[in-house]
Amino acid sequence: MTPRPRAVVVVTGSELVRGERTDLNGPFLAREALKHGLEPARIAIVGDSPAELETALRDALGADAILVSGGLGPTHDDRTVEMVARVLGLPLVVDPELEAQIESVSRAAAVRMRRDYADFAPGVTKQATRPSTALSLGLAGTAPGLLIPRDDGRVVVVLPGPPGELQRLWPNALETEAFRALLARTQAPGRRVFRLFGVSESAVARALAEAGGDGDGVEVTICARDFEIHVDFVVEPKADARADELERDFLAPLGQWLYGSDERGVEEHVLELCRARGLTIATAESCTGGLVAARLTSVPGSSDVVLGGIVAYSNGVKERELAVPAGLLAEHGAVSAEVAAAMARGARERLGADVAVSVTGVAGPGGGTAEKPVGLVYMHAEGPDGCLGRELSFPGDRAAIRARSVVIALHLVRALLARSRDEPV
Amino acid sequence: MTPRPRAVVVVTGSELVRGERTDLNGPFLAREALKHGLEPARIAIVGDSPAELETALRDALGADAILVSGGLGPTHDDRTVEMVARVLGLPLVVDPELEAQIESVSRAAAVRMRRDYADFAPGVTKQATRPSTALSLGLAGTAPGLLIPRDDGRVVVVLPGPPGELQRLWPNALETEAFRALLARTQAPGRRVFRLFGVSESAVARALAEAGGDGDGVEVTICARDFEIHVDFVVEPKADARADELERDFLAPLGQWLYGSDERGVEEHVLELCRARGLTIATAESCTGGLVAARLTSVPGSSDVVLGGIVAYSNGVKERELAVPAGLLAEHGAVSAEVAAAMARGARERLGADVAVSVTGVAGPGGGTAEKPVGLVYMHAEGPDGCLGRELSFPGDRAAIRARSVVIALHLVRALLARSRDEPV
Repeated sequence: MTPRPRAVVVVTGSELVRGERTDLNGPFLAREALKHGLEPARIAIVGDSPAELETALRDALGADAILVSGGLGPTHDDRTVEMVARVLGLPLVVDPELEAQIESVSRAAAVRMRRDYADFAPGVTKQATRPSTALSLGLAGTAPGLLIPRDDGRVVVVLPGPPGELQRLWPNALETEAFRALLARTQAPGRRVFRLFGVSESAVARALAEAGGDGDGVEVTICARDFEIHVDFVVEPKADARADELERDFLAPLGQWLYGSDERGVEEHVLELCRARGLTIATAESCTGGLVAARLTSVPGSSDVVLGGIVAYSNGVKERELAVPAGLLAEHGAVSAEVAAAMARGARERLGADVAVSVTGVAGPGGGTAEKPVGLVYMHAEGPDGCLGRELSFPGDRAAIRARSVVIALHLVRALLARSRDEPV
Repeated sequence: MTPRPRAVVVVTGSELVRGERTDLNGPFLAREALKHGLEPARIAIVGDSPAELETALRDALGADAILVSGGLGPTHDDRTVEMVARVLGLPLVVDPELEAQIESVSRAAAVRMRRDYADFAPGVTKQATRPSTALSLGLAGTAPGLLIPRDDGRVVVVLPGPPGELQRLWPNALETEAFRALLARTQAPGRRVFRLFGVSESAVARALAEAGGDGDGVEVTICARDFEIHVDFVVEPKADARADELERDFLAPLGQWLYGSDERGVEEHVLELCRARGLTIATAESCTGGLVAARLTSVPGSSDVVLGGIVAYSNGVKERELAVPAGLLAEHGAVSAEVAAAMARGARERLGADVAVSVTGVAGPGGGTAEKPVGLVYMHAEGPDGCLGRELSFPGDRAAIRARSVVIALHLVRALLARSRDEPV
């Protein structure tokens, strides 16, 4: 099997390299590269400094495809085209056709903004300047996307920084003869996704090792993400049989923790389990403050299953809105298994839902005691066929404790519904 | 002025270089580097492939600080420590103290997960292995952060991939002698932050240009973020007078939209305005599904102000829990100014809160009609001195519509409370 052509993405923008804005172009170009059979090897983000940009481009010269974004504007600090020409050893030329196109766009802009076209003219010439062998991919505003073929069938693609514009011009790059020739050397890989919950990353890694490990055309990534374990198989063409075998042996000891074989999150599984049985659901949240309800309602069409929820942050709201007995709160405290159970029951009854899930805990940083420290969380799920409760003790800060509580609460409902489905009580 | 020490960030993670997940660590480390007087020169994202990681580290060797994230897990494809040792030419050693710490964490995890510790043992030794001269920065789960001093006062910092863990261990790196010595060679720039809401990015850019623009030791970034405009002044030492002048002229035409001069989010302003007047707050949410309550309760100590909220996704819950009259729902529809107002009133009364904010809208992708298209959102804030309502029409997908609604609903309460404070009705 020949290795996939390597793609390196170079993103330029001072606000990006300083972390003031999140780069979207690198991930987009990487996903596209992978989808078309290239291997995304690196995403490099640099600022407007010509020296840093030049270095990043030089470091990318070994790649089969260099995908560059940003730095195409009309002003002096937009140096991408100049630097690309320099590292490729190509002269710069003013492209008369491009210049005519950009002039036409700029004249229209000058009229619209009631400004003199003379203000725009130097920028027009600057933006119509390209490495001698470059092809235009079309304009984004006044900035042209460019493709520069290299020796050995390699290419450099230069695209504008605004993500919408970049995504609009990208297909034009794919359609050039040079890029098609590059893609003809490769075949897009297949992908298999597995999601597990309740098992450690190391146990999953051991299962993979015991199943023979990856390789032979199947690359496996194991990734702890959002308090779950996500496993990706990237399957080379013709490695499907090997992938089938590995999948079988790998999953055999992990079956009880496998909850999905696609990209859907746990909230989608909960909704689907409810929908399949015609059940409605409601939430009762204290420390998660609405995040469980928000996650369930993040799914389009969730309104046929989710009735709503009560965020019962104060004890008064727990009593009045969820009918948690004051005596229970006094005896066990708001953070207790008893109150979690009462909250779930209260939500079912008050909101008229078939299923309810509750969370109450100490998210911190304040409010912890020796008996009930920060990170102690109780959750409870109640449905028509029974209930499940859990006591947990989470590390981390307030945001981590809340985020983890949401995931585990949703898995608790999922487990309750899956159990009900498999073994009706 | 001597140039600032250069920082290069190297982020590893196959899911990141493939664009399957957005990297948060690069931006975080870049912001931190800048804040402490380093120049963030490059963020490089690579996958788990040892060759790509090694190349990225070698390309970074010229930097004064190399900040590495990810690849510290217990499994075979986590190779960061090994590759850092290789490019620095350092032997690897098993650190007995680290091993004891990691074993203790792993044994506790084994008990909690009801698994055999033997499953964890190989991972423990792997994670306790470090370059010979490395210092431990503490554990994130079972993964140690490391700092490796280099010649000429340069450093390499290795931190775990999960953003919360990375951010928790980062301050420990700053406190090491080696990092302090590096930072002593530079002087952190001053930073001034301005947060504006309700004004366009181009209007803010024009105000900056008309105030004379940046330069002369003051660098300004204008960034549209979370549906607000965030402006950063990075002020070189001795440029304070210039910054004062620019700040005055720049903000003069923008005063009405400026809501904060620090990093605090709008939710913190809302809580502070409530707290200052001894007011409690509650929420009533339909399309945002709990996100407004979640954002308010994300702030530590919010429980003295936030009583709770009702997520009224179904009309039944709107009627029963928020006392929205069935007639009103029938006449105007759930997505209407009238129902938004009734929801806020209902939340105040039912939860006994002084202030309430409500949101109801069509988040899509389904559920839109010609009259009430996807993106139509009504919100309402009611307090002891009056109320404010808004009708909005948002572009974007479900997540964007929900996220934007949350920000604007919080600004609506802020405006109501600020108005009440300034001009009591």
